[in-house]
Amino acid sequence: MATLIAQPPAPAPPVTGLDVRLLARTNALTNTTSGLAPSHLQANLLILPAPHASDFRLLCARNPVPCPLIGESAVPGAYSALTSHLPNNYTAIASDVDIRRDAPRYNVYVDGRLTKEGCLDITAEWQHDHVAFLIGCSFSFEGALSAAGLPPRHTLQNRIVPMYRTQLPLCPAGVFTGSTYVVSMRVYRGKEEVQRVRDITRAYHATHGEPVDWGWDALARLGIVDVDVPQWGDAPLTADGRRPLSEAWAREDEIPVFWGCGVTPQEAVVRAGIEGVVMAHAPGHMVLLDCTDADVVSGGC
Amino acid sequence: MATLIAQPPAPAPPVTGLDVRLLARTNALTNTTSGLAPSHLQANLLILPAPHASDFRLLCARNPVPCPLIGESAVPGAYSALTSHLPNNYTAIASDVDIRRDAPRYNVYVDGRLTKEGCLDITAEWQHDHVAFLIGCSFSFEGALSAAGLPPRHTLQNRIVPMYRTQLPLCPAGVFTGSTYVVSMRVYRGKEEVQRVRDITRAYHATHGEPVDWGWDALARLGIVDVDVPQWGDAPLTADGRRPLSEAWAREDEIPVFWGCGVTPQEAVVRAGIEGVVMAHAPGHMVLLDCTDADVVSGGC
Repeated sequence: MATLIAQPPAPAPPVTGLDVRLLARTNALTNTTSGLAPSHLQANLLILPAPHASDFRLLCARNPVPCPLIGESAVPGAYSALTSHLPNNYTAIASDVDIRRDAPRYNVYVDGRLTKEGCLDITAEWQHDHVAFLIGCSFSFEGALSAAGLPPRHTLQNRIVPMYRTQLPLCPAGVFTGSTYVVSMRVYRGKEEVQRVRDITRAYHATHGEPVDWGWDALARLGIVDVDVPQWGDAPLTADGRRPLSEAWAREDEIPVFWGCGVTPQEAVVRAGIEGVVMAHAPGHMVLLDCTDADVVSGGC
Repeated sequence: MATLIAQPPAPAPPVTGLDVRLLARTNALTNTTSGLAPSHLQANLLILPAPHASDFRLLCARNPVPCPLIGESAVPGAYSALTSHLPNNYTAIASDVDIRRDAPRYNVYVDGRLTKEGCLDITAEWQHDHVAFLIGCSFSFEGALSAAGLPPRHTLQNRIVPMYRTQLPLCPAGVFTGSTYVVSMRVYRGKEEVQRVRDITRAYHATHGEPVDWGWDALARLGIVDVDVPQWGDAPLTADGRRPLSEAWAREDEIPVFWGCGVTPQEAVVRAGIEGVVMAHAPGHMVLLDCTDADVVSGGC
């Protein structure tokens, strides 16, 4: 007869944004944050030398749909004190934070070239005049879409949302010239569903809001050459998961819908060839915040 | 010997925004406001039925460069009380105002079609649920450019700035879909001048800010077919005023520079075919405000 031996309890899943930050800070979490701490905002991260901060702030202000600015370092060099740019100046977007360690993985660029990919922290690279910027992420409205019975297909198929470079120019700002929107794409069926997803995502101002375009003719308007070949994420598939999306048998019914994407600001930094050390989260490895999706929609966060 | 007879004094030129508003209110001014009350903000006007107000507000928020929202009716139906959207919530953007009479001339649209052009007031058309929106105008930074020794050529030639429809899409918002940027164009010489006009206009966030594009190759990016044929304003000319701009002998030296334009929101309303009675100022016949250009740049207005 086998002896009963007490097993150590399985670690509790992270529930709050702080739970996820602490796991990342201690390198107990090094994977994607997709699906963690549901309903808590996940943010794109971009860290620039202070001389470029005002131009980047202006780039976000002039292009709020792809680059919704949520918050930034309270002062240059601050990695644990953040100022909110959300309505009501809610300051506790992340009350216990170390921006150098709280994303699971980071990328480092020097003079516009990627020099480290997926490193676990950036404590060695952080300099006294670095300014961290937090930018909204569409994970937020995906929860709302699922809750409304309109789950994005890539979530059902356990794939990463497809993202595309476009020819849609950003409004330039100072040193940030020559960049274009990056968009994410989700497929919906029929005009009524498109109207519903427009209505549901509209209120998410801080996380890209409603779509920027939709329909098969949007591909030409946006300058997307091949819907089956996204520049980031996984290729989109038909509903049965067996064929490329472009082979969808009823194009009138399957409608690609495009939203502004948080990869846009990273592209802008690279395209502008910003001098000095620039850092960002590794795609998919976001910084979790204390605010929830509901806070953003209601303007409370 | 001729008898000296006292002549009535010539009317003093309007100095403040209120001076201009009172002249327009009494129909003593029915012409363009260009050059009046120098340094005071001139605003584009757009008046919508309340059911479309939130979508229009969102259109402006998502497209702040062509549609910089300065203020709006304090409540639906209010034509003499305005709420500011400028930094610091400066409320006295126009302290004694009747938005139905204070622009020299108006246009009226019904169900998206122009039904009255250039009428002197809209007191008969104003309904209890109309909401007036004030949108920034590039007259502001033109003063700054002239003060810096870079006067726009059209002002030297006493012509109206050329404005063009583009293929650059607005981010849609609710009922406002399918519209594109309108841009204004000013010619400068050489890359250094372009950089200087970018730097000078950058701070004018509430009045379109820095350019959206520049250079001869910008025409193709923006979808402008013929630089000599603007859709509004006067055709641009060479520096000697004798030839169409496209015949400029040194294209490398003469550089067209494009800014977001306040005609954009009117185009958006027409393209969306908004139902009901929509009103606007007649182009060039702006509403003068109490704020000055300096207030906008400093964030004080």
